Amino acid sequence: MRVSSAFRPNRWVALLTDFGLQDPYVAVMKAVILQQAPEARFVDITHEVAPQNVLQGAWMLKRVVRFFPSGTVFVAVVDPGVGTGRRNLVLLTPEFAFVGPDNGLFTWVAHHQGTQAFAVPTPPQASATFHGRDVYAPVAARLLTGPVPDPSWQPLDPTSRVQLAVPPVTVRGNRARAVILFFDRFGNAITNVEREAWPDLCVEAVRIDGRWVPLHRTYADVAPGEPLALWGSFGELEISVREGNAQNLLGLRPLQPIELILC
Amino acid sequence: MRVSSAFRPNRWVALLTDFGLQDPYVAVMKAVILQQAPEARFVDITHEVAPQNVLQGAWMLKRVVRFFPSGTVFVAVVDPGVGTGRRNLVLLTPEFAFVGPDNGLFTWVAHHQGTQAFAVPTPPQASATFHGRDVYAPVAARLLTGPVPDPSWQPLDPTSRVQLAVPPVTVRGNRARAVILFFDRFGNAITNVEREAWPDLCVEAVRIDGRWVPLHRTYADVAPGEPLALWGSFGELEISVREGNAQNLLGLRPLQPIELILC
Amino acid sequence: MRVSSAFRPNRWVALLTDFGLQDPYVAVMKAVILQQAPEARFVDITHEVAPQNVLQGAWMLKRVVRFFPSGTVFVAVVDPGVGTGRRNLVLLTPEFAFVGPDNGLFTWVAHHQGTQAFAVPTPPQASATFHGRDVYAPVAARLLTGPVPDPSWQPLDPTSRVQLAVPPVTVRGNRARAVILFFDRFGNAITNVEREAWPDLCVEAVRIDGRWVPLHRTYADVAPGEPLALWGSFGELEISVREGNAQNLLGLRPLQPIELILC
Repeated sequence: MRVSSAFRPNRWVALLTDFGLQDPYVAVMKAVILQQAPEARFVDITHEVAPQNVLQGAWMLKRVVRFFPSGTVFVAVVDPGVGTGRRNLVLLTPEFAFVGPDNGLFTWVAHHQGTQAFAVPTPPQASATFHGRDVYAPVAARLLTGPVPDPSWQPLDPTSRVQLAVPPVTVRGNRARAVILFFDRFGNAITNVEREAWPDLCVEAVRIDGRWVPLHRTYADVAPGEPLALWGSFGELEISVREGNAQNLLGLRPLQPIELILC
Repeated sequence: MRVSSAFRPNRWVALLTDFGLQDPYVAVMKAVILQQAPEARFVDITHEVAPQNVLQGAWMLKRVVRFFPSGTVFVAVVDPGVGTGRRNLVLLTPEFAFVGPDNGLFTWVAHHQGTQAFAVPTPPQASATFHGRDVYAPVAARLLTGPVPDPSWQPLDPTSRVQLAVPPVTVRGNRARAVILFFDRFGNAITNVEREAWPDLCVEAVRIDGRWVPLHRTYADVAPGEPLALWGSFGELEISVREGNAQNLLGLRPLQPIELILC
Repeated sequence: MRVSSAFRPNRWVALLTDFGLQDPYVAVMKAVILQQAPEARFVDITHEVAPQNVLQGAWMLKRVVRFFPSGTVFVAVVDPGVGTGRRNLVLLTPEFAFVGPDNGLFTWVAHHQGTQAFAVPTPPQASATFHGRDVYAPVAARLLTGPVPDPSWQPLDPTSRVQLAVPPVTVRGNRARAVILFFDRFGNAITNVEREAWPDLCVEAVRIDGRWVPLHRTYADVAPGEPLALWGSFGELEISVREGNAQNLLGLRPLQPIELILC
């Protein structure tokens, strides 16, 4: 079969896992990659995805991919189904390569027309609990050194991958219903309202638990300690408190419904 | 204008932020740098500066810069004023380059005689909340690839930068007053008493909350569990507990006053 | 003296410390290495060893070394004895180099027949509290750039290094006694039962606090929320809860005795 000729590795591997930084799991994956691809270089996207929270990992991947240079190999491992029959996925676009479990992690990436997908067989000697080391790291090395695809990889319909969903945004008159998805380290709430999906949505304010939070352009448009909604730097509507922690100060929680007041 | 000919990038970028490691913000900055400067290499100084604690970030930068090889580009982003009119600063010395917000982060670095300073305009397409990605990362890439300065950068008087201050050490007879600044991961208290600033200060002990803590050369000079003061490895007077956590065991807090008993 | 001709640095330095990621200590070690060895590249094994827990650091090193490419320099610093007379150790095998305090950190590595050991003198200008920066980082740079050994390094009998021990596994009839050593970020309990040491041990279940936990091949062999024992990906017997945290859910603790029910 003919492979997209455009993907050329740039030797950078971007890693996203829920392994944390306390254990040596991430380092071991890097070590295994270096065994086969000594020129590899690494960027850690994050290893603090909440344990086994595939949705959070998928959303994070979606947010960051476009900022990486063409030729980056992404290894994503949030893998509650390790050791089951879930497939190992490789996705190749003209720009990027992705490898990880087929559990929804790649829901929002690699939708380019020329995307190719492959199922990678689990080697018989692989452990039953650490495919990051035994399956995905060797595949990442192969993506760096070629040739790609390996003959053992089985071509797939890219649309056959597992797909996740977040609750939809629903607009009705001058109101819209949405939800909080996640919080960042500063306590900013990231919602499911994406500017790209709703380019014409004119938001005046957000109502949460009966509280009215006005939309502004940036933190400095309100006094320190005051809440605001704003279009965040990754294109989602966010709820923040200037120089404060919105999650704690407003008592917010994941998947909490919010109401948008439209202009 | 003539630029200091001495700064030559060594392709290492040292990053200091308050972004934490849970979110992908640091990775995105690295990705943006790599887009323009594929040969960049990264050292993370820390990303665990307390959120929006510019003073802590500035002090940390001061402690570490001298250990880096000549040619390092430092990107520091602790930026509560993002989206306001605060300036974007580039500082160039014969050895190092610095980029970040002009909010005091660079108070204790780049005082070399030949230091040059520039204000970098915020690009119109920059987000209002993530200048680390939209302003400082591209500038860091430019510092790596040249030419420097960019014609859009506006030369500044280096002394016009925002400067922070910590409470002064005051000596009176055989007593001195000082304060605790920060704690490290081991619970060691770092004070504002710097050996370099007080080369002749002969400290016998430190009094904290009425408790007398003797000065020693190293942890092993006291029994496990016992407190001691010592000149720390970065030149500040520190308060520690051997094989224990001084912050917890002595109930210490940031900006707590201490009294030095002089010889 | 003749040195093992086989160790050739591959320019990768793998670091393991208890310094955490909040303070700039790790970055300063990297900076010092880069000063002398600009081609150095870094992999962080972990910096979250519990403060001063030499045993945990030693066990982690043991688990990961074999995955690294030949030519890796390992710098390990968990060093409660810094500033005392404890030796500074360099170990050279045909594959790897190790540097750190001689306090047991290297108990389970570098037992290759051709291992060479050296005591490195502490430079007179070294601080009393940060040998990672002042002793081990410069030695790591030297291991990268050569020549090795430095004439100041004093050859040692490799077996004279400080050795740690964990409680032994004792087998009696169809029962065995063992202990929990550590927990990983997912709450999996890692025990002292190593498959390599007990290749013929047939485990049916583990009894903990009177509770019977069956052995399975992988998480998916039990229902979500159910406990299981399994042979972990690093070869130890582990106790887990599928999609849950065994440490919290079963109330486990380090050094807790467990009983193995043998087939």
